[in-house]
Amino acid sequence: MSAERSAPVSDEAADPRPVLAVDIGGTKIAVALVGPDAAVSDRVVVPTPVSGRPEEAWATVTAAAAGPLARAAARGGIRGIGIGSAGPVDPAAGTISPVMITVWRDAPVRAWAAAWAPGVPVVLTGDGICVATGEHWAGAGRGARNMLGCTVSTGVGGGLILGGRPWPGPSSNAGHIGHVITDPDGPSCPCGSRGCLELTASGTALLSRARAAGWIGPGPGASTADLADAARAEDPVATRAFADAGRALAAAFTSVCAVCDLDLIVVGGGVAQAGPLLFDAIDAGMREFAGLPFLRRVAVRRAELGADTGLIGAAAPLHRPDRYAAPENLRPPPASHPLP
Amino acid sequence: MSAERSAPVSDEAADPRPVLAVDIGGTKIAVALVGPDAAVSDRVVVPTPVSGRPEEAWATVTAAAAGPLARAAARGGIRGIGIGSAGPVDPAAGTISPVMITVWRDAPVRAWAAAWAPGVPVVLTGDGICVATGEHWAGAGRGARNMLGCTVSTGVGGGLILGGRPWPGPSSNAGHIGHVITDPDGPSCPCGSRGCLELTASGTALLSRARAAGWIGPGPGASTADLADAARAEDPVATRAFADAGRALAAAFTSVCAVCDLDLIVVGGGVAQAGPLLFDAIDAGMREFAGLPFLRRVAVRRAELGADTGLIGAAAPLHRPDRYAAPENLRPPPASHPLP
Repeated sequence: MSAERSAPVSDEAADPRPVLAVDIGGTKIAVALVGPDAAVSDRVVVPTPVSGRPEEAWATVTAAAAGPLARAAARGGIRGIGIGSAGPVDPAAGTISPVMITVWRDAPVRAWAAAWAPGVPVVLTGDGICVATGEHWAGAGRGARNMLGCTVSTGVGGGLILGGRPWPGPSSNAGHIGHVITDPDGPSCPCGSRGCLELTASGTALLSRARAAGWIGPGPGASTADLADAARAEDPVATRAFADAGRALAAAFTSVCAVCDLDLIVVGGGVAQAGPLLFDAIDAGMREFAGLPFLRRVAVRRAELGADTGLIGAAAPLHRPDRYAAPENLRPPPASHPLP
Repeated sequence: MSAERSAPVSDEAADPRPVLAVDIGGTKIAVALVGPDAAVSDRVVVPTPVSGRPEEAWATVTAAAAGPLARAAARGGIRGIGIGSAGPVDPAAGTISPVMITVWRDAPVRAWAAAWAPGVPVVLTGDGICVATGEHWAGAGRGARNMLGCTVSTGVGGGLILGGRPWPGPSSNAGHIGHVITDPDGPSCPCGSRGCLELTASGTALLSRARAAGWIGPGPGASTADLADAARAEDPVATRAFADAGRALAAAFTSVCAVCDLDLIVVGGGVAQAGPLLFDAIDAGMREFAGLPFLRRVAVRRAELGADTGLIGAAAPLHRPDRYAAPENLRPPPASHPLP
């Protein structure tokens, strides 16, 4: 993977300056420099703030960014700042209201980040799109025209690339593959619907379904990695949990491809670390559900960028605006915007 | 409806010449003139050929087109020829291979139609996209940026408008809403999958499911209109068939909107003639399944163009190439292409 990622991924005369990338997730926030070849360096990871005034909570991120910014300044500065965040996000307004980060509601992170390096563009992107753009720019999706990037982790999320460009949709919510309905008579989902893919295929669901069927594993702190170990040891409950998850993912992928006419699905996230346990089940499901010729041609590949996907995807619109930028995102925020 | 359709739908300086539109379906083929205001005139309908050599079968369509072409010639000619066809279609090659029209396989209909009026552009579009572009240009989808046009008829089909433009996808198969999987443990589908929406919501499925549950109606020739009459008379089996269809449509619509982030769904076709029987069930299903705020905002509207949708959609890329044309479609076929 690192060999692939060190290969040039840009075909334009590159600005050698890195992008400062910020990846805001429900449990941790990563800051790093991402070069024009998608190489990630100077990574700093901090826990996501759970309390405090919004601006005070942001000070944690500002502190994390200080080191990478100083190192970049010594080498010619940064090309811009790319923020990827759990949703909902409002890329046009530059604000985020992540469901699981209650301290930030309509938090003006684009303006806050702009104060770190006045004069450079700051771009905000939803984390689902970052998965897709990261893998499309520098990972398993390189060269694809029409793909879904999908993360199977605590939840299930993703983003679409259509015609070689990101499709965030009018509300920046496109790619919510976790809330495709795979069991209309299934259990209620916290989203207000029922039978969503996420209730079968997320890491959370894998564990709760296995526990409900009697699996205990190493105890209350058991992880999906423990469940994968149990499946590899042929525990039938654990095996069934991965088989159900893969089959539900395949049903959802087939439905999305029937409507969007995609060429490729790239699957990453913590649960994808289970490897063949999950991917063999997805492949079996695709053979079951993808009947029409244009669906049978769809390839499913494992993501290549691991935990760096979000950072690389957040930087992509600044390094490759021709492909990945939403035009309204590339303007610096107005100087009159209140800054922390 | 006709009052709405007589209103101007073009905001560019219009070429006053009509488009000759051809709508190729499994049971009938319609030919008509479609004006720059989307008004349909000089309509001729013939049965779809079921036997004969491919070129001989096309002679039926050529004969149907003769009258409209002559009347247009007397008034300044036509702007172009727009063909909408049941799929699979290959818009780039100008050929069609409709599943239900066995006489045509890789039939070069664009070249055949070009012989009717040499020198004008001929555009070929899949019928799913025609539903979407027709309603978007001149019907219930006017002004929408992101919509699904859906036909519920013998089968269930449709097309996507994304960012105000058609999204046919790389294989021209996008919009296959009928093969979204709404019941992964459901019955096998002729497409090779199982539990497809079409198995619950198509007219064919409504009738077969009602019959399997004991409904007889007027006998073997009973139609979905008869089934709708029975439901209005509170026949429980008929009522249940429409309720199941509407709920399955809502589940599929919600899944598509979760991934594509749409604003609007427009539903037409013969089964939609059942009106509130179907639409009340869809609305109830949307309340059940569309939980996330960006999904709750989606509107579902009844199509406005009736049986003319396909003709109007086939003409749309020629009258409004700025919105509806795929560039490679607007070149006349090479003169050396074999013609019938």
